[in-house]
Amino acid sequence: MVSWISRRGARPEAPRLRPRVAPTELTKVDFTELVPEPVPFLGQAAYIQLEFFEGLALAVRTAPDLGAKEGLSAAAGIALGKHHDLIAELRRSGVEPVDVMAPFAPATDRLRRAWTDADWYELLLGIHITSGMLDGYFSSLAGGLPADVSRRVRGILDRGGAGTVLETQLASAIAAQPGLADRLALWGRSLVGDTLLIARSALRASDARGLDERVEPIFTELIADHTRRMDALGLTA
Amino acid sequence: MVSWISRRGARPEAPRLRPRVAPTELTKVDFTELVPEPVPFLGQAAYIQLEFFEGLALAVRTAPDLGAKEGLSAAAGIALGKHHDLIAELRRSGVEPVDVMAPFAPATDRLRRAWTDADWYELLLGIHITSGMLDGYFSSLAGGLPADVSRRVRGILDRGGAGTVLETQLASAIAAQPGLADRLALWGRSLVGDTLLIARSALRASDARGLDERVEPIFTELIADHTRRMDALGLTA
Repeated sequence: MVSWISRRGARPEAPRLRPRVAPTELTKVDFTELVPEPVPFLGQAAYIQLEFFEGLALAVRTAPDLGAKEGLSAAAGIALGKHHDLIAELRRSGVEPVDVMAPFAPATDRLRRAWTDADWYELLLGIHITSGMLDGYFSSLAGGLPADVSRRVRGILDRGGAGTVLETQLASAIAAQPGLADRLALWGRSLVGDTLLIARSALRASDARGLDERVEPIFTELIADHTRRMDALGLTA
Repeated sequence: MVSWISRRGARPEAPRLRPRVAPTELTKVDFTELVPEPVPFLGQAAYIQLEFFEGLALAVRTAPDLGAKEGLSAAAGIALGKHHDLIAELRRSGVEPVDVMAPFAPATDRLRRAWTDADWYELLLGIHITSGMLDGYFSSLAGGLPADVSRRVRGILDRGGAGTVLETQLASAIAAQPGLADRLALWGRSLVGDTLLIARSALRASDARGLDERVEPIFTELIADHTRRMDALGLTA
């Protein structure tokens, strides 16, 4: 369990302005109608994990103390493990992972550049928000892959752990630093657009007929999931 | 096998100026006379792997192409795995790893600062040189630990793979960029002193009687090992 609950109790100056959104399950939307092309899907998913890894490794390198470094290094290891396991899945398909990932670099690099210019807390929140939204989303989308690939890929993407580390670090900083919550709330909001663009691009290879009307509820769920994550930190989404 | 041999054949402009040093085995020196204190030994070894990880992660982030990024991310994963397995070994001893690692931060951070200010190739060579020297050295020193700890710790430290990635990247850059070899040779030489200081500090907890005379052959071997590594890249040590 995360330790922000007691800390939040010490922050009467930051009342929650909106009702808590109940935890949502992305799987409420029927993702199985969406059938991604396995190779580009895996390439994009693998590249995204590499970006999460790079962001987390940067957070390790710039961490204010060795305890934070240690927790974040575990989170970096989780993202790197997901990346390498998705790469292994691509090699199993007989393709060269680097070639398959390359087309997804520009859109994903936009996120990374935003993180890199950010300060340490913004970096942490940036990774927390985007990995929180995209891991669940790609895992749901993987439900449309052939059964054996689907099972393995969901097993990879559903590995948790990194989010808890980020949430713990952020909650403790928000409790300790007046004004940080407001700044982070704005920052979090600024990242949602690029994250949704990445989510949208993952559907490009899918059957496009009637895609828009099927996609709308998925994006509604993604936003609700994001709101819940911000809410858990006491941040306005 | 590394692929630098054929590349070196294409570099008649860079004759080897000194005879190849035969591969040395650090174990020729009797390390078993040196009995490190397990907890600080593991703390220092774990912190050093964290530094290698951070250096490699920086190399991933600043890599010139996705292929290099991919190879280096595997190397970063190896260093991170060693770090986390040494941390697990510390937890098994019932100590808090962060507390145990902290005293070793300043000396090790000196190395990292040198890498961080360096360009990409210097960063790669810096990690290659220091991890090459220190992994072998700490593994040899681990021979003096209690038998079961010794076996596990040597198993962790002897995991290879990262060196080959670094050597391949460096050899290909040295072959392609005139002048790089000279610059890297100077750079490599500048790192040896700090690396030896770290090696020396690992003996501080050992029985100090007659340490100096026992340590001399160890350091001679470390330098020979370093020379062999530089020589493999066609660099003057």
